[in-house]
Amino acid sequence: MTLNTSGYLPHIAYDSVIFGFSGEKLKILLIEYHNTGWLALPGGFVKVNEPLDEAVKRGLRERTGLDQIFLEQFYTFGSLERVKPEIMKKILTAHDKDISDDHWLLDRFISVGYYALIDYDKVEPTPDALSDSINWYDVDQIPELLFDHNFIVKKALDHLRTHLDEKLLSVNLLPERFTMKELQQVYEAILGEKLNRANFQRKMLSLGILDRHEKLYSGGSHKAPYLYSIKKKG
Amino acid sequence: MTLNTSGYLPHIAYDSVIFGFSGEKLKILLIEYHNTGWLALPGGFVKVNEPLDEAVKRGLRERTGLDQIFLEQFYTFGSLERVKPEIMKKILTAHDKDISDDHWLLDRFISVGYYALIDYDKVEPTPDALSDSINWYDVDQIPELLFDHNFIVKKALDHLRTHLDEKLLSVNLLPERFTMKELQQVYEAILGEKLNRANFQRKMLSLGILDRHEKLYSGGSHKAPYLYSIKKKG
Repeated sequence: MTLNTSGYLPHIAYDSVIFGFSGEKLKILLIEYHNTGWLALPGGFVKVNEPLDEAVKRGLRERTGLDQIFLEQFYTFGSLERVKPEIMKKILTAHDKDISDDHWLLDRFISVGYYALIDYDKVEPTPDALSDSINWYDVDQIPELLFDHNFIVKKALDHLRTHLDEKLLSVNLLPERFTMKELQQVYEAILGEKLNRANFQRKMLSLGILDRHEKLYSGGSHKAPYLYSIKKKG
Repeated sequence: MTLNTSGYLPHIAYDSVIFGFSGEKLKILLIEYHNTGWLALPGGFVKVNEPLDEAVKRGLRERTGLDQIFLEQFYTFGSLERVKPEIMKKILTAHDKDISDDHWLLDRFISVGYYALIDYDKVEPTPDALSDSINWYDVDQIPELLFDHNFIVKKALDHLRTHLDEKLLSVNLLPERFTMKELQQVYEAILGEKLNRANFQRKMLSLGILDRHEKLYSGGSHKAPYLYSIKKKG
């Protein structure tokens, strides 16, 4: 094996599932590769002397312009089904005609999955060198993706749903102050189901993670809602 | 980079935290390397054409003699602090004097962490080619381990503690039928704290994952305890 990996570790990649909340829908970012119409998760590689976490942060910064992101590793994908050198070859050839058959990117990769929760309104999605575009897609309408990326999205959603209450503490999906109704909308978008309003409010208050503030003044209404924020740690 | 990796993927390893319950204490298996006195987690490497999960199962089978093991991935470790080629060189040299400076095992490795829950009484711990011995250690008295292995153990324990109720469904830490007291002992050993008997019983029954069977006959006692088993799925 004699490969020029351009300063990256061979065989190791990461894929990122970047969640944003549009106010109504939970969405993720997908890239479209040059001249193929193929969709995939944004991902990347780890430099020889770069910590794994830093590599992922670097990739997210390049794709979203954001620096302070809630980012978490959730699973590492190492099956043989995900090895598809012929597809990778087409992607690389669409970018550069001269790809040799022993190019390091045609080898088997084990990919570490990360998910990010970002502020939908602040992000400026930016395509990378191999892709034409990067866009938001509803999580309940994800098209067919390359490799095992549909499975990776499913695993990320499973993880987010299981740990929703604890993740909420560090989440960027809401403005700093929000109503109980807005909070319920985030939960419903992530869980993909409608929730009972009274039960939801009771559960949220019982978690002890919310601070209640003054009522939102809405011009004389008797039903002005309270505003809440996530309790600061410490 | 021209390396003979003997059919394994370079740069990718796994480490396994193998939990067993002695009846009183939660324990893990540690290996001791040849002629060094150094302790570490049992780990290994992934063959070029082997799924990641299969590689870990193969390693566990070789070390424990067990085939049916509850095994789960929990985190992938990719910091630079874990890269210690001088220590790896000493370990390899203790086994074989002729280790060249570009040996593939001296390179940087990203390691996928798995934990296993095994039946303490059924296991026959077996050292690998590089180690003198493999033995059980109490989780609350883990000595200093090589590389970042103390951190890996901590992460595995955090994960197990957070997901204890759901993991219980597939756990091998208990006999097929057990008393509520035995179940509480497993929880206390894993959580590292004493639990209130009445609260514990109420919580366990409310989870809806236990089947209750006939009382354990213990020779005329009026306090013969019920036996329980984990509900079969489906």
